[in-house]
Amino acid sequence: MIKAAILGGSGYTGVELMRIIHLHPEVELVWVTSRKHAGKSVTSLFPSLIAYDGLNFIDPSDKAAEQKVDVVFTAVPHQTAMNAVPHYLAAGAKVVDLSADFRIRNQAVYEEWYVKHTAPELLEKAAYGLPEIYESRIKESRLVANPGCYPTSTILPLFPLLKEGLIDSQGIVVDSKSGASGAGRGASVALLFCEVNEAFKAYKVGQHRHTPEIEQELSVAAGNGVTINFTPHLVPMSRGILTTSYSKAKEGVATKDVLERLEHAYKKCPFVKVLPEGSFPNVAHVRGTNFCFIGAFVDERTGRVILVSAIDNLTKGASGQAVQNMNLMFGLDQETGLNSLALFP
Amino acid sequence: MIKAAILGGSGYTGVELMRIIHLHPEVELVWVTSRKHAGKSVTSLFPSLIAYDGLNFIDPSDKAAEQKVDVVFTAVPHQTAMNAVPHYLAAGAKVVDLSADFRIRNQAVYEEWYVKHTAPELLEKAAYGLPEIYESRIKESRLVANPGCYPTSTILPLFPLLKEGLIDSQGIVVDSKSGASGAGRGASVALLFCEVNEAFKAYKVGQHRHTPEIEQELSVAAGNGVTINFTPHLVPMSRGILTTSYSKAKEGVATKDVLERLEHAYKKCPFVKVLPEGSFPNVAHVRGTNFCFIGAFVDERTGRVILVSAIDNLTKGASGQAVQNMNLMFGLDQETGLNSLALFP
Amino acid sequence: MIKAAILGGSGYTGVELMRIIHLHPEVELVWVTSRKHAGKSVTSLFPSLIAYDGLNFIDPSDKAAEQKVDVVFTAVPHQTAMNAVPHYLAAGAKVVDLSADFRIRNQAVYEEWYVKHTAPELLEKAAYGLPEIYESRIKESRLVANPGCYPTSTILPLFPLLKEGLIDSQGIVVDSKSGASGAGRGASVALLFCEVNEAFKAYKVGQHRHTPEIEQELSVAAGNGVTINFTPHLVPMSRGILTTSYSKAKEGVATKDVLERLEHAYKKCPFVKVLPEGSFPNVAHVRGTNFCFIGAFVDERTGRVILVSAIDNLTKGASGQAVQNMNLMFGLDQETGLNSLALFP
Amino acid sequence: MIKAAILGGSGYTGVELMRIIHLHPEVELVWVTSRKHAGKSVTSLFPSLIAYDGLNFIDPSDKAAEQKVDVVFTAVPHQTAMNAVPHYLAAGAKVVDLSADFRIRNQAVYEEWYVKHTAPELLEKAAYGLPEIYESRIKESRLVANPGCYPTSTILPLFPLLKEGLIDSQGIVVDSKSGASGAGRGASVALLFCEVNEAFKAYKVGQHRHTPEIEQELSVAAGNGVTINFTPHLVPMSRGILTTSYSKAKEGVATKDVLERLEHAYKKCPFVKVLPEGSFPNVAHVRGTNFCFIGAFVDERTGRVILVSAIDNLTKGASGQAVQNMNLMFGLDQETGLNSLALFP
Repeated sequence: MIKAAILGGSGYTGVELMRIIHLHPEVELVWVTSRKHAGKSVTSLFPSLIAYDGLNFIDPSDKAAEQKVDVVFTAVPHQTAMNAVPHYLAAGAKVVDLSADFRIRNQAVYEEWYVKHTAPELLEKAAYGLPEIYESRIKESRLVANPGCYPTSTILPLFPLLKEGLIDSQGIVVDSKSGASGAGRGASVALLFCEVNEAFKAYKVGQHRHTPEIEQELSVAAGNGVTINFTPHLVPMSRGILTTSYSKAKEGVATKDVLERLEHAYKKCPFVKVLPEGSFPNVAHVRGTNFCFIGAFVDERTGRVILVSAIDNLTKGASGQAVQNMNLMFGLDQETGLNSLALFP
Repeated sequence: MIKAAILGGSGYTGVELMRIIHLHPEVELVWVTSRKHAGKSVTSLFPSLIAYDGLNFIDPSDKAAEQKVDVVFTAVPHQTAMNAVPHYLAAGAKVVDLSADFRIRNQAVYEEWYVKHTAPELLEKAAYGLPEIYESRIKESRLVANPGCYPTSTILPLFPLLKEGLIDSQGIVVDSKSGASGAGRGASVALLFCEVNEAFKAYKVGQHRHTPEIEQELSVAAGNGVTINFTPHLVPMSRGILTTSYSKAKEGVATKDVLERLEHAYKKCPFVKVLPEGSFPNVAHVRGTNFCFIGAFVDERTGRVILVSAIDNLTKGASGQAVQNMNLMFGLDQETGLNSLALFP
Repeated sequence: MIKAAILGGSGYTGVELMRIIHLHPEVELVWVTSRKHAGKSVTSLFPSLIAYDGLNFIDPSDKAAEQKVDVVFTAVPHQTAMNAVPHYLAAGAKVVDLSADFRIRNQAVYEEWYVKHTAPELLEKAAYGLPEIYESRIKESRLVANPGCYPTSTILPLFPLLKEGLIDSQGIVVDSKSGASGAGRGASVALLFCEVNEAFKAYKVGQHRHTPEIEQELSVAAGNGVTINFTPHLVPMSRGILTTSYSKAKEGVATKDVLERLEHAYKKCPFVKVLPEGSFPNVAHVRGTNFCFIGAFVDERTGRVILVSAIDNLTKGASGQAVQNMNLMFGLDQETGLNSLALFP
Repeated sequence: MIKAAILGGSGYTGVELMRIIHLHPEVELVWVTSRKHAGKSVTSLFPSLIAYDGLNFIDPSDKAAEQKVDVVFTAVPHQTAMNAVPHYLAAGAKVVDLSADFRIRNQAVYEEWYVKHTAPELLEKAAYGLPEIYESRIKESRLVANPGCYPTSTILPLFPLLKEGLIDSQGIVVDSKSGASGAGRGASVALLFCEVNEAFKAYKVGQHRHTPEIEQELSVAAGNGVTINFTPHLVPMSRGILTTSYSKAKEGVATKDVLERLEHAYKKCPFVKVLPEGSFPNVAHVRGTNFCFIGAFVDERTGRVILVSAIDNLTKGASGQAVQNMNLMFGLDQETGLNSLALFP
């Protein structure tokens, strides 16, 4: 059994990690921290986690959090993560970091969009944890930077097309729509039920921090610098991201070509499902799962490729992908513990 | 491996059965019928059931539906079920019937609330499939009548209190609230998103067919005829039933007594969770699971016991309980395949 | 034109007051306070209030808030209200208080459920602002205590039946369900979209402060002390309260009798609509309006009267009723400015 | 008083027309048809329309539907509309047609995307009913083709920028998101609450019939043929459309320039509100109103203009705009009867 711990377990990604770990046959949760809720039982705060009866949140400074584990999932905000990760690595644990701190390889870019980095020496050691693209690197890594939710949904459909030159690397537009859980569990007027229900808006237009992360990976795929427009929107639902992207098809590229390329790229990837021509994904069909569903259409009137992808932001977009990464880091089948089907409806 | 089939698999309970069976280590789905969708692939209609790639819905009259199985789940409307069940029993299968056709032991009562019964000889052979109460009978039975969703949520909290005489058997008020999936997947204006969203109503006031089913079981518990008021309401959510009941406490009965009695009654029942004093359940915490959470309060100002219970209407209220019953009928641990935690949020 | 002011305008009831006042032909809003948002423009915080371009929230201590007005709506929490109301009365304004501070006539009862009262001398001067029952008293009053949302929905259907002796005054059960706006606009984890969406729960079981308010008015109707069970529930919608009550019918009382009595009681009340036999209300049909829709059924199997009523908690349950009261206090037709129809869907 | 009639009054746009007309001081509804519900009272089907007590739906072939009126709103599907409109024009009424039948000026384009046209002679007589652009033509017209909901939200922000040459006319991407009421009130599994709730999808990718309508008007603005990518999405809410468009800024064009141009274009348009720099619209703030809110941002990293607009699809996107058009056709102030503020929350 792999002994696991969670740093920052009282947010939605922490709760989702516990839900998934409960079904995982090879993992045991040893401790879970929460500064705010230290001393309280997990089930009193989250009755859905009924199987964790007897487990309490502890403060990260608590002695019990020094208990050695094989893997630590750091589900804390950026900056907090970069301060904690070196400690757990030094203690001999592998780390899957769900924050943004080790996703951007270029320190200057990180610091432009976020804050000063205090552990820059780890940037090149960290693997970018998108297993469909970096599987072998993840397997060898002791630190995996779990991708952002928007980047996961955006990179998966675009990467193979850029890599194989089916689309132009310039002029890509990414229009994403996310459920409210992506914004976390902090008390905030803007996230109250009455503010999100029967509402829809764009936010952080032109300024969302997932932009450089997406551009980094699309640039890898294209082999040159890619700059995109990325606009996130808030959907009145709890879970799910749907990303619609628009890019210029190379001459002669038809819908069939795009679908074949995607099929080929992901034929060994159990969590990516390319839908048949004419079908497009719905976030409802991947809810609570680690799947990414992709649909594609080449509009011959305009010469543009429209890609639509759906994930659950808390699962493939966060905690499910973290467990997928952990599976690879420990030599397990990547599907282990992740084979539930979506709750529909 | 237990070979299973589903009669009527294209409704929400059929889809939920397939979701659960996929995770069940001892069950294999052999065939699934749908009159309306015969010939279509399961995944084209329900992309969430991605693991069933290659399986098609068949017509119930199809030869393939004669293929012998160990258990048939009949997830068809009442009346259709009573016509089909004898056939599968005769063919050697065990049957878990999710319709109302074999829930009411008294033929006259059934016929008063539903229609003429065409297989009345099976009424006394069928076990009422509430495992927390009829476990031994279910184990021996070849036909189990899976309880209704409202009755499951109502009977579990009230049964032990009536049986042990902590409450009066007269004057019980049951006020239930259900998500929209309880009404099924038929095309209907009343169930359109725009009609259910940002709406709330009572329906079938004084006339819901689950009334005699609840009364039957409460009468068993009380040892005399129990008549109740039962009012269902439609909640703008997909899944979940919350039932609030009001009954007269016997003299001297306090909250503590009620909670202890419930704890004692269900101490060996893995799916019933009695919440600590002062806590009350939320359907969000049992979503997609087979749990029933119960909270209780005795109001000393009025002498009434208020019981609040939460289930997922499609899981403990239908398909999860059906699998729990199947587990018992085949000598498996009743929790097999049912140990997922709720998807929260 | 009536010059009006709002004390505490940045909550949902304040915003609703401004929405209604904008359509009112005889009222002009002079100032509106918000401690938290003083200095900010109304439209920057609430873009829906586009017609108030140029108006800023001011601090209640601001000189501008001394500007004389004809009526002050106090939409602040209880306790804050009782401190402010005497000041505005002394300054010559009439006051409609939307808090609980002047609803309970008996000081001891108020103090048992709330806090110590600092303006008890006003308790007997205040009119309980349910115009369907206290119209003449409201017309003569300078201080009206606007009823709570749950009490409004509960008292309207029960009052005439108790008064005319069609139901027993003992053993009344009130099961209410409210949208999330009833809990206000404060930042709170429990009210986040992800916590309320696809969720349903009872809360403050046996302890909600609207209980004594309801009992006070039902006791007036019955002519003796009435004690009830009152259980509120949280519905995943923004607006609306549906209340289902259960009471014992007096011998021989049928559905028809109940409906006739209600019809008769409210025949001159433009905002109460008694639905025909067999029809029950839906909160969707009164959204954004000052209407209360009522349906009734006498269950002959149990001898109980089931009453179902629907209001919009922010309109008839708060700001709409406040304007209805203001209309009466200033000699206007009570419907003035309140004749919009519900937004459906 | 203007005598009005509605052909096809039992869909969501018909109901919305009746809601608006009730508040309109100069209009009186004389008759309303519904093939399906002929003979039933309006209030029995739509209790929210309580003010129409006594009015019944009639069959369009009913004698009563020959009663002369000043204006007919045709709220029937395309094809049905083109058959009915000539009749009412011949009878002397003005017509506001809410279908697509008279929106496309080019008969061949209409027939490519829809069906054969049976009243092509009216195409050039009809005014395209976007009052912010065609006010004078609408005033003189006896037939106004009320724009589609998506086109309204798309054309308003883009038209002035194309006209003044601030953006390229090629390569425009339009990503729209609509609430479920846009799909109408027909019984359909795809629109059930359980299918739309907690779900999000793109639909009719590359094929939506509003595409040629948008292109027609953008071509007028640009003075040359404009081809766009248009992708509609279904949001789990009842009302509202948010449209995000991406176009290439002409050299040197900054956010400030775009906002100024929009401000200038719409300075005399009471229903268009251009938000200050850094602000973007939310459909919640225009719910139930005739407003269109617009935000803009020029991304200097990519040289693209991002425009975000919000309308209520049933009001400014259908029935509100129809009444605005009627006001102009009858010489009234265009705001008459349309001055309600949004219901928030």
